[in-house]
Amino acid sequence: MTSQQTEQVWKALDSFRIELPSWGFADTGTRFGKFHQPAAAATIEEKFSDAAEVNRVTGVCPTLALHVLWDFKGERSAAEVTELAARTGIRAGSINPNLFQDQIYKFGSLGNPDPKIRETASQHILESIAIATTVNSRDISLWFADGSNYPGTQNIRHRKAWFEDGLRSAHAALKNDQRLLVEYKPFEPAFYHTDIADWGMALELARAAGPQAKVLVDTGHHYSAQNIEQIVAWLLDSNMLGGFHFNDRRYADDDLTLGSIDPYQVFRIFHEIVLFEFETGKPADIAYMVDQSHNLKPKIEAMIQTVTTAQELFAKAAIVDHEKLAATQMTCALVDAETCLKDAFATDVRPVIEEWRIARGLPPQPMAAFRESGYQQRIEAERGSKGRGGGSSYA
Amino acid sequence: MTSQQTEQVWKALDSFRIELPSWGFADTGTRFGKFHQPAAAATIEEKFSDAAEVNRVTGVCPTLALHVLWDFKGERSAAEVTELAARTGIRAGSINPNLFQDQIYKFGSLGNPDPKIRETASQHILESIAIATTVNSRDISLWFADGSNYPGTQNIRHRKAWFEDGLRSAHAALKNDQRLLVEYKPFEPAFYHTDIADWGMALELARAAGPQAKVLVDTGHHYSAQNIEQIVAWLLDSNMLGGFHFNDRRYADDDLTLGSIDPYQVFRIFHEIVLFEFETGKPADIAYMVDQSHNLKPKIEAMIQTVTTAQELFAKAAIVDHEKLAATQMTCALVDAETCLKDAFATDVRPVIEEWRIARGLPPQPMAAFRESGYQQRIEAERGSKGRGGGSSYA
Amino acid sequence: MTSQQTEQVWKALDSFRIELPSWGFADTGTRFGKFHQPAAAATIEEKFSDAAEVNRVTGVCPTLALHVLWDFKGERSAAEVTELAARTGIRAGSINPNLFQDQIYKFGSLGNPDPKIRETASQHILESIAIATTVNSRDISLWFADGSNYPGTQNIRHRKAWFEDGLRSAHAALKNDQRLLVEYKPFEPAFYHTDIADWGMALELARAAGPQAKVLVDTGHHYSAQNIEQIVAWLLDSNMLGGFHFNDRRYADDDLTLGSIDPYQVFRIFHEIVLFEFETGKPADIAYMVDQSHNLKPKIEAMIQTVTTAQELFAKAAIVDHEKLAATQMTCALVDAETCLKDAFATDVRPVIEEWRIARGLPPQPMAAFRESGYQQRIEAERGSKGRGGGSSYA
Amino acid sequence: MTSQQTEQVWKALDSFRIELPSWGFADTGTRFGKFHQPAAAATIEEKFSDAAEVNRVTGVCPTLALHVLWDFKGERSAAEVTELAARTGIRAGSINPNLFQDQIYKFGSLGNPDPKIRETASQHILESIAIATTVNSRDISLWFADGSNYPGTQNIRHRKAWFEDGLRSAHAALKNDQRLLVEYKPFEPAFYHTDIADWGMALELARAAGPQAKVLVDTGHHYSAQNIEQIVAWLLDSNMLGGFHFNDRRYADDDLTLGSIDPYQVFRIFHEIVLFEFETGKPADIAYMVDQSHNLKPKIEAMIQTVTTAQELFAKAAIVDHEKLAATQMTCALVDAETCLKDAFATDVRPVIEEWRIARGLPPQPMAAFRESGYQQRIEAERGSKGRGGGSSYA
Repeated sequence: MTSQQTEQVWKALDSFRIELPSWGFADTGTRFGKFHQPAAAATIEEKFSDAAEVNRVTGVCPTLALHVLWDFKGERSAAEVTELAARTGIRAGSINPNLFQDQIYKFGSLGNPDPKIRETASQHILESIAIATTVNSRDISLWFADGSNYPGTQNIRHRKAWFEDGLRSAHAALKNDQRLLVEYKPFEPAFYHTDIADWGMALELARAAGPQAKVLVDTGHHYSAQNIEQIVAWLLDSNMLGGFHFNDRRYADDDLTLGSIDPYQVFRIFHEIVLFEFETGKPADIAYMVDQSHNLKPKIEAMIQTVTTAQELFAKAAIVDHEKLAATQMTCALVDAETCLKDAFATDVRPVIEEWRIARGLPPQPMAAFRESGYQQRIEAERGSKGRGGGSSYA
Repeated sequence: MTSQQTEQVWKALDSFRIELPSWGFADTGTRFGKFHQPAAAATIEEKFSDAAEVNRVTGVCPTLALHVLWDFKGERSAAEVTELAARTGIRAGSINPNLFQDQIYKFGSLGNPDPKIRETASQHILESIAIATTVNSRDISLWFADGSNYPGTQNIRHRKAWFEDGLRSAHAALKNDQRLLVEYKPFEPAFYHTDIADWGMALELARAAGPQAKVLVDTGHHYSAQNIEQIVAWLLDSNMLGGFHFNDRRYADDDLTLGSIDPYQVFRIFHEIVLFEFETGKPADIAYMVDQSHNLKPKIEAMIQTVTTAQELFAKAAIVDHEKLAATQMTCALVDAETCLKDAFATDVRPVIEEWRIARGLPPQPMAAFRESGYQQRIEAERGSKGRGGGSSYA
Repeated sequence: MTSQQTEQVWKALDSFRIELPSWGFADTGTRFGKFHQPAAAATIEEKFSDAAEVNRVTGVCPTLALHVLWDFKGERSAAEVTELAARTGIRAGSINPNLFQDQIYKFGSLGNPDPKIRETASQHILESIAIATTVNSRDISLWFADGSNYPGTQNIRHRKAWFEDGLRSAHAALKNDQRLLVEYKPFEPAFYHTDIADWGMALELARAAGPQAKVLVDTGHHYSAQNIEQIVAWLLDSNMLGGFHFNDRRYADDDLTLGSIDPYQVFRIFHEIVLFEFETGKPADIAYMVDQSHNLKPKIEAMIQTVTTAQELFAKAAIVDHEKLAATQMTCALVDAETCLKDAFATDVRPVIEEWRIARGLPPQPMAAFRESGYQQRIEAERGSKGRGGGSSYA
Repeated sequence: MTSQQTEQVWKALDSFRIELPSWGFADTGTRFGKFHQPAAAATIEEKFSDAAEVNRVTGVCPTLALHVLWDFKGERSAAEVTELAARTGIRAGSINPNLFQDQIYKFGSLGNPDPKIRETASQHILESIAIATTVNSRDISLWFADGSNYPGTQNIRHRKAWFEDGLRSAHAALKNDQRLLVEYKPFEPAFYHTDIADWGMALELARAAGPQAKVLVDTGHHYSAQNIEQIVAWLLDSNMLGGFHFNDRRYADDDLTLGSIDPYQVFRIFHEIVLFEFETGKPADIAYMVDQSHNLKPKIEAMIQTVTTAQELFAKAAIVDHEKLAATQMTCALVDAETCLKDAFATDVRPVIEEWRIARGLPPQPMAAFRESGYQQRIEAERGSKGRGGGSSYA
């Protein structure tokens, strides 16, 4: 690696922060059941504690995405979060309303034919924005499970209109520096139609909502073979990319560890971002968030693995030779242009990342540092003794 | 419709029986939660009662598939099932072991690297076979969730060998007239590799198990765009098709109502079976079973809709002109051959099915008959008052 | 069928016109070769003649889509088309530029990094618009094969900008009553990225081009499992749906006969259109065009089959009970709402379509009328003797 | 890299040979046309010459797969091939019959309903086996385009039986050391059903043919998201894997450069092979063949890139720590097991491969060596002046 490349990696790592999800430390599963982990976090304190541990060994995870339904249990919660932030050094990150779990959302939230349920959903979003304001969060992340399971059972255009209304009213409640992030997903849990099924629908609705609404790209929410980095490039070009929910998948929305299935694709996504910043000379205003729920892997280890993988792939993207790439692209020298990307991807960036960590006062190997800390054993003993878990998710 | 076609439809309907799943009457959901229905069945009595109601109005559902973990709660259960069968007129159908829900199955059942867990799984299958013997069931349906989520984390060939061992020992416990049905599924809940991922793997394992092992085709367990009727035709040709789990889907294993998304595909599957029977002059020895869990639709209504849809599509398949089809296939008269199928599919078979129902002493319109019965209201009142439900499946 | 439904079918059929593609009568194939048909049309006269024959027996195909490269061979061609239109009663339909076949388009047309090639592509579009003006065509249909095969070999955002420029300049040349239809396609012939890959990208570019640019939906140009009727509903809602290229497919862009693989999906697309017209009280301003190239079926017969299939599925959509549907949708009566669609789909509309044909002075059975005419034998003898074959693989 | 790893890489590279396809040097395209390259090979001499050049700079491509229809033009061809082999040092590799291009194969070859066409197809295979014997080739590679485009137009089971007959008669003509490789492909050019659609069907037919028939895995011939390495592991376990056709793809059978889209998947395939060899202690008897047709990239450069990419990914697979992997798999230490694979993949093996090349008397950088040779300029001048182009779209 040249000294210029080393510098590029260091600069990239200095700028790269990644937000952890509070629900990534809790027990989750598939519809066929949950495999309970004694170390799983069950309270907001435990989630902040676990996130702080990941941040302690990686140094790049200063914020924690919070889920209103699961993390905020009443009026005292916001104050509690502020207190936890002060204690753990982890700030509240994006605020995530829940518009799918309550029984009233059986047929949708903002897209529900029943105006009272739409109003309830709207209120919940407004409350979430208020919470965001209280805990000083910038982003409100909106994922809607809304849709239908059978042809003909819902009016697609009416629901679109209801979504426009609901998002507009949410946007009106934003403070000037807040953003509404609109997520899309092609299917699950709705199987025939999902109201916000793809980036085009999210884009249309974000525009209808207002200028502070942007699109949120969850890497697992695409059709098979869809080119995610192209969508990223288009959204960047239109100044409509708000952030990412990172995870990997093979089939559907599998929520696997980032880069575990197709690391080259993640690298290409990062490349589009780095290239955009290189060409425009300005940083892309993007929230990098993890959205993974590890059913089988130990949760904290999986999160550390996610963060270090993201760093490696981001570092590889940082050393692409942009001048050479541009020249070969203009002359359609395909093999040479492709080689620009492949050479960066083939480079082993792990040693330079270790050097950077040491220089920044971080453990050179986050996973080893975590394992040596005894944290996992401690929480397994503490939390496991409380005998939580129970109840399969299916039938 | 010609009188010959009418006769074909009547004959087809007389021969067509479809098994209901006990879990199709219980509350189920997605990983994002369950929407509770007051009428959902929670006990084995309620499941038999609901199945009997579906059979009362359709007349073609004399058996109920049972799930060992959910339906058998101890030594008395088998006797209870026998008693319920006598009382409701519904016999026990296929017996379904559960090899995925217990915490020990986190890394697999018959494919688990731990020999003790493999042994436990084997024992559970043997117990299920014993139950089947007691309740006089012919088929033991085996679906395995076994697999892995991440490349490299399990040895694919070792697990294959363990599966061969486990299935062989299960086969050895069968009585002469029993069958082992081996199901396949490409993904979910395992996301990187599933041990029995496709029909080829199920076929190989069924052959390894022994002559009474056959392949079970779940219509929702295929890759996008895979030709299911071709698989059915191949399995029929090899005498290796044991039965179906019916449902429909758009994306993954969505477990939607049969024929709700792609009715022409279901018709084509039935056509391959009817054609096989026409050409060989013998009935295909196939168990037709429903495997659907309706999260949003009322469960009993959805099951009635499933049964009548299956009858309609089976009746359409029964009136394909096989002589004409064969002649046009041999001369590659594509438009005429295709028209044979399309004409049958375009025919409105509902009137002749109504006539058949009346002649068989059944209500001409099962759904109307069910709604007039007051059954739904009755069980909603009875079961709803018990205040079941609770607990989301996710996080 | 009720008399009201009969009336709805007649009204629907009276309003439904479908445009045939000139290239649908010529020899085409796959990349593995062409199977030559003696009756294949090789000249513009033959294409008009074949289209006129389809229109003679169906009565609903008054226009013929023309392909500039294949159908216009010089300055005299436009006059020739006008003369042919007068002679055959078939008017020129949409005009289709060709921006993929020439060797200069190896790396793209409007998205090519070479400004001279972009300029050539632009000129070809302007010439096509001029041809459209001369032959009195309303729509210019733009399909771009532009894209790249390998990551990193082209700059996605630069190409987007070049497309915006090219389409804006094309739009500027439109007469007031003309439209630019922008088509999308996820892949093929470009395999890594396609510049206009989905409806969202087509929508963005159409908006950038100007108010007379609309989106063209080719039913075969979607990801597996993508909900096409939802896209149609959204585009209708935004007044951005310009028209369709009809065909069916199982895997990719297979260009099979409409409704041959998934007739229920085509029905659902028509349903969204009919429902939009019912709710808004105005006709949807949509061009219905066939885009199929039959490699194995006889071309004229396949086109007749396409047209009659489209009529059947459109007629089924016309008899959906919209009031009942709306009421059941609002109360989320899923089974009843779905049944509204399924009942319409299950109805055998063929008899009433025959009646309508007779009343309109058309043969009741177009295919039979065509076969009795001897047209196919005549052209096979005439054209087959000319010993054609060879040439490029496509049209 | 440890010295043990270096040794493993050297050993792996010493054993790894990859066969080039003659058609990879000729002009090919998509159904939308061909982009002609002046350097494209048009004769068997040119193809041997180009292959020899790739072998000169890589040292690992001693054989050339030959296509009977395109490469053998009469009785003298076999002798010519023998003479060319002597002159260029490239031996004849696998022999590929062509059973799709002739007009008689419109409705299939071995699966055609017409017994005369089936007989012609059989004869062509027998002639291909005879050619293989003459030119001393071990493998006859069978890819069948057979299938149908529309439901009902062909009898799936009859065609299966005809395939069994045809393959059995082909097997009977094999010499003792020859093999029949049966390839599968889910679709294209047949769009409704393909007679040999997946590995299960290829396996069944290979078994029906006889013990010298094995399955050929083309990496591009799978459903989206299908786990190719699992299929490879199963076939290895059953001693039924005959070889590979290597290429990469994003959507369908895109025939892109190996490793250009998903390099981690190729690595995982190699890993399954290396692991099998490690565990069994015997080499897997597999033919590694390239099956790519580069439409846009310069053909020889693309082939060099393919070979060096394959070496890099094979070398990475060679340094996986199998003992550690086995231990972590047995204890389900998921993160550690996965890390075994990821560490090997993250390792930059390019320097050690360069060292190996130098030690073996090869140019350290094959692409640079090729470019410095002037070969490309020479053949462009020689071949380009002959003004070729035109002809069928494929090879």
